[in-house]
Amino acid sequence: MSIIVHKYGGTSMGSVERIQNVARRVAKWHAAGHQVVVVPSAMSGETNRLLALAKELSPQPDLREQDMLVSTGEQASSALLAMALIKQGTPARSYAGWQIPVLTDGAHTRARIRSIDDVRIRADLDSGRVVIITGFQGVDEDGNVTTLGRGGSDTSAVAVAAALGADECLIFTDVDGVYTTDPRVVPEARRMNVISFEEMLEMASLGSKVLQIRSVEFAGKYHVPVRVLSSLTDPMIPVEIEMVSGTLITFEEDKKMEAAVVSGIAFSRDEAKVTLRNVPDTPGVAYSILGPVAAANIDVDMILQNISLQGMTDFSFTVNRNDYVRTLDLLKNQIGPAVGAGEIVSDDKVAKVSIVGIGMRSHVGVASLMFRTLSEEGINIQMISTSEIKTSVLINDKYMELAVRALHKAFELDQASIQPED
Amino acid sequence: MSIIVHKYGGTSMGSVERIQNVARRVAKWHAAGHQVVVVPSAMSGETNRLLALAKELSPQPDLREQDMLVSTGEQASSALLAMALIKQGTPARSYAGWQIPVLTDGAHTRARIRSIDDVRIRADLDSGRVVIITGFQGVDEDGNVTTLGRGGSDTSAVAVAAALGADECLIFTDVDGVYTTDPRVVPEARRMNVISFEEMLEMASLGSKVLQIRSVEFAGKYHVPVRVLSSLTDPMIPVEIEMVSGTLITFEEDKKMEAAVVSGIAFSRDEAKVTLRNVPDTPGVAYSILGPVAAANIDVDMILQNISLQGMTDFSFTVNRNDYVRTLDLLKNQIGPAVGAGEIVSDDKVAKVSIVGIGMRSHVGVASLMFRTLSEEGINIQMISTSEIKTSVLINDKYMELAVRALHKAFELDQASIQPED
Repeated sequence: MSIIVHKYGGTSMGSVERIQNVARRVAKWHAAGHQVVVVPSAMSGETNRLLALAKELSPQPDLREQDMLVSTGEQASSALLAMALIKQGTPARSYAGWQIPVLTDGAHTRARIRSIDDVRIRADLDSGRVVIITGFQGVDEDGNVTTLGRGGSDTSAVAVAAALGADECLIFTDVDGVYTTDPRVVPEARRMNVISFEEMLEMASLGSKVLQIRSVEFAGKYHVPVRVLSSLTDPMIPVEIEMVSGTLITFEEDKKMEAAVVSGIAFSRDEAKVTLRNVPDTPGVAYSILGPVAAANIDVDMILQNISLQGMTDFSFTVNRNDYVRTLDLLKNQIGPAVGAGEIVSDDKVAKVSIVGIGMRSHVGVASLMFRTLSEEGINIQMISTSEIKTSVLINDKYMELAVRALHKAFELDQASIQPED
Repeated sequence: MSIIVHKYGGTSMGSVERIQNVARRVAKWHAAGHQVVVVPSAMSGETNRLLALAKELSPQPDLREQDMLVSTGEQASSALLAMALIKQGTPARSYAGWQIPVLTDGAHTRARIRSIDDVRIRADLDSGRVVIITGFQGVDEDGNVTTLGRGGSDTSAVAVAAALGADECLIFTDVDGVYTTDPRVVPEARRMNVISFEEMLEMASLGSKVLQIRSVEFAGKYHVPVRVLSSLTDPMIPVEIEMVSGTLITFEEDKKMEAAVVSGIAFSRDEAKVTLRNVPDTPGVAYSILGPVAAANIDVDMILQNISLQGMTDFSFTVNRNDYVRTLDLLKNQIGPAVGAGEIVSDDKVAKVSIVGIGMRSHVGVASLMFRTLSEEGINIQMISTSEIKTSVLINDKYMELAVRALHKAFELDQASIQPED
């Protein structure tokens, strides 16, 4: 008997009717002989409703209390799903994170899972119940409720699957899989049947919203087979069809057969770039600049330091656009004076476009095709960042869609798949 | 340093502005040097919103899951109150029932509190924090979330006060105390400064909605001084004034000084009467009738058995109007045939009016003044029930207000109080 974990997002849980559909789908898998664990998100809108109440009370609510508050959303949706299943004749029981427990560290609003006790889950599964576990939340060693941060329900589901050694973790969402790029930007975008773990990791970190990056990391660490598929299809389609639909994130490269050099194109508009001009090029200057930025909990993405000219250099980096104002403040009032920098130049109208593909490892000329394509479209590249399996460029954000479409075509991602389509 | 427990109902917690007012009041008590524990209800409307979702999924939702669902309401309001306090500069921390823990039995939706651990509460109080504990909920031995039933937050507050040996439990509500009767029916009704525990117990059980009866029982068992007062007054009025306002429920009878013979008049329209005619008057017939009623979880209130005539008797009792249809079904299809009864007569247009007063113990003629007053108003008495400190009558419900007003006047409850008005 296989153990299957289902994860449903807020849209899938967004109304009584949708919860009933989720219950039908879960009951179908249960009836097919699988042991099923479900990890639901809060009903769509609920987390934002609660956060809005908090913000009315305090612009920066106490984080412990914020976790107490927003964690109620998943507890409610989980209980509602259990009711729907029981009503449909499928034994079920819901658990909040602390009841399992899902043990995390104490970092409120961005906690990390440390361990998941499987005793209660297995006992319920063995007695024939569907087990429902609140996504997004856990409990720390002192019994405080914690949350994993936005999108954390994906991570919860993968972590539960890892703890149980589940056969597969099915992430049901409002898209039917992972695409070569966002179909809203490139209508010719194709769904991939299979994507390698490494590629998915890059796609997630580069702005693809399909899966939260930490859930992909978790899947990688524990080798959990994850499948992304649509919750909007008829809940009564056979289990066998759902088992091969969507996109499977795999750890076996040969499953991909003759993989394309480039698998997908990711992009993000949430970028901002800052440059410190005329920084004295002394040892430790990078740390002097980025240390305080990290201390302020601002994530830095691309970093670029030009070669030195007369002992002075320009130092650029990108941050999330939400952190732009804070970063500028920090540079102007603290870091700039401290390192003796000149002018500060900044731009929050930039976007990052990335090509991702495990095949890039062994193929030369991939980056140059990217640069040539952008050049032919007259798009100036502001920064470049590379890894083994991706190349990212920073460009003016008004050219973002144009760049994505041109690259999608240049790398022939709109062509009939060379992956087997079964 | 005294320990004071505050309880706030759903109306007091009903909006961000009201939560801020509650926070101001709590902060004021904290600043005055008291150790304060707060037990809030869910924001008004929230419990009903959640129950409506559950009812959409299932007319009779699984009770364990219903408790998981509705308990989120108090968790959210408690967290919001903590945020409001912290924002106002008062250290505070909120706890769900399971975090304290508030240990209950496993009877979902109507659990009873078994014990409350005071370790965490005292540690927080000693470190200068306001402690907020969700009302209405607890956790059973197996770690399942339980709720205490409607109005259970009063019970939570009194139980917390008992566990801490608190100096007083202040029940803040939308009325400013306990009245001689409902001011909406008798505008001359007076607020009592003090009421004895026994009288409050009768008032609560007889239909006064001010306090949930189980909370009064709890207060009696553990001798917790409880004060009912208004949350709608200016939250910044001095602590000293609030300490003597509202109505204090006391265990020291001498505090009441020359107490009135009758303290108050309670009434309830939620009544229904059923009569089994011509029941064979054999030993055990009362049990044969009421046993199955109790087994169906229907509470019976007044019971009346007429003297036997030719070996046959009439047997009447009253139930809550909500249980009327179920009770009739039971009588017609099960109990009536089983005991060989004749006709079943029933009436759900009845009301109960009660006079309550600890002075009745030692004063004769109280009941007869009640009966004479009703007679003078032409109101027929259908059933009578008495205890040491109350006399209740069942009457046609269209005369209820008339009866309450006439009795309020007859017992001079509208006269200037003979209680000290300090």
